[in-house]
Amino acid sequence: MSVGAVTVHVAPASSPWYATIASAVEAGGARVGALDESTGLVWLDTKVDTLDAHLHERISWMQFRMAGVDALIAAGVIDERRTFTTARGIYADGVAEHALALILAATGGLRELARRGGPGPAVPARSLADLTVAVVGAGGIGAALVALLAPLGPRIIGVTRTGRDVPGCHESLSADRLDEVWPVADVIVLAAPATASTVHLIDADVLDVMRDDAVLVNIARGSLIDTDALTVALREGRLGVAALDVTDPEPLPDGHPLWSEPRAIITPHSANPGSAQLVRLAALVEENVRRFVAGDELLGAVDLEAGY
Amino acid sequence: MSVGAVTVHVAPASSPWYATIASAVEAGGARVGALDESTGLVWLDTKVDTLDAHLHERISWMQFRMAGVDALIAAGVIDERRTFTTARGIYADGVAEHALALILAATGGLRELARRGGPGPAVPARSLADLTVAVVGAGGIGAALVALLAPLGPRIIGVTRTGRDVPGCHESLSADRLDEVWPVADVIVLAAPATASTVHLIDADVLDVMRDDAVLVNIARGSLIDTDALTVALREGRLGVAALDVTDPEPLPDGHPLWSEPRAIITPHSANPGSAQLVRLAALVEENVRRFVAGDELLGAVDLEAGY
Repeated sequence: MSVGAVTVHVAPASSPWYATIASAVEAGGARVGALDESTGLVWLDTKVDTLDAHLHERISWMQFRMAGVDALIAAGVIDERRTFTTARGIYADGVAEHALALILAATGGLRELARRGGPGPAVPARSLADLTVAVVGAGGIGAALVALLAPLGPRIIGVTRTGRDVPGCHESLSADRLDEVWPVADVIVLAAPATASTVHLIDADVLDVMRDDAVLVNIARGSLIDTDALTVALREGRLGVAALDVTDPEPLPDGHPLWSEPRAIITPHSANPGSAQLVRLAALVEENVRRFVAGDELLGAVDLEAGY
Repeated sequence: MSVGAVTVHVAPASSPWYATIASAVEAGGARVGALDESTGLVWLDTKVDTLDAHLHERISWMQFRMAGVDALIAAGVIDERRTFTTARGIYADGVAEHALALILAATGGLRELARRGGPGPAVPARSLADLTVAVVGAGGIGAALVALLAPLGPRIIGVTRTGRDVPGCHESLSADRLDEVWPVADVIVLAAPATASTVHLIDADVLDVMRDDAVLVNIARGSLIDTDALTVALREGRLGVAALDVTDPEPLPDGHPLWSEPRAIITPHSANPGSAQLVRLAALVEENVRRFVAGDELLGAVDLEAGY
């Protein structure tokens, strides 16, 4: 161990991921050590109730295993005293793949067609080549989804906060132009982070101006949709299909009207296939340790102003 | 009309597609005329009971609107006295898209997850990036499917009669090496034409050597699978999921055990979205008329020896 080596603490030691992530820290060029010797902290739990006690003054970097930390920002766990990094991005491919499955199931009429009791109503399948898909929040997941959609030939509108050019999109719009998107999109995919400004992004007013046959896909956070307004719109036939991997509340309670809504496809926050997560997290930790040791900019740093 | 112009007959005149296809014939450079003046015939019906009466001696080319003509070959309607062309290829994109929807629904566990009565069994979703997909019959539909699969990152094995190199596949095998494919493929997509040599391509012996968690997708013809053997394999848990757009018999009769098989996803031969068919057929007819007038090779010509 060279003098001046950076020490990173990995917690909790009881995590089944501990050994793999500790190796990744070492592969990145740091020493894995006790908390009070460390300036970096990798937190392997999804619970954070004991996290505060770990954040002593000399910890200047903290790595989460989760992609979304909106609840932690709201709770004040994440502040400006140190750099917090999330695992966003590493789940992008898996979530994008699930989003594509939901889109194809909804546009292709799989929901009605994949039945088990005998012939049901025939739903005309629509080809994505004839549709306009709006990807709202074209960050890591959105960009991965755009790449999967491209060979299917839809017109793709990418929406980001700033309206920067999103590769693979036919049109790139800023979030303040969403009013132009709602009436023209056949498929709307919510891939935006949950922030104060995206709570109930989809409310009764927005549902009113969407196409009556629109497919609304949510693979982001349940809070982006006003669930009551969505339930009413589906019941009244003012929306084609809602394909939801996330809901508010989550999980949906037994007996919730969405469970029996024939226009709803609901998956239980399953867009992250577990198998590949550890491998991808280890690669991210290794790279971030390398950058931490070198004093370079870290991947997935939380921007408190942006809220993610 | 110039002297010596080629005349093509379009039938039946009662078809709702008549006007569009007649325009396509003219756009291709031929005259639309009476049957007895014509050397080409475009047949817009899916029924062929009155076709024979239309095939007089001077008709040297006949265009079908269908992609699969195996039944017509068997019935002796298609012979070597003239060139018969099918619409195969024009439906490839739509069928490939439906195949992708079925693959993602099956591998992503959408079948179990998209439920409506409350929480069901949690099925671990698998990411295509971790799977091997075998596309059996990498013709027009298969090639289109390979292009859609590529960005999802699976290992792709393309199987054709001759074993020619299939673009985008990691491995290209000839049909006589299918025995090597069955045990290693996580997803097997049947996209081969129905011929004498593909009847019951998937029988009890093949189902025995497939992986117990394999996903079998059929978007070709029901006859490629021994339905009884499939039903038994699914019931005994020796196959992961069967996702079938075509069945034998078709439609499956009410009460057939596959309807109540939880490992089966069944769609009613719906892989051809109707909306775009006419546009694509018109483009094909225009191009084939152009080639017919010029004496060039026609697209989609039936090869009686190959059987499609």
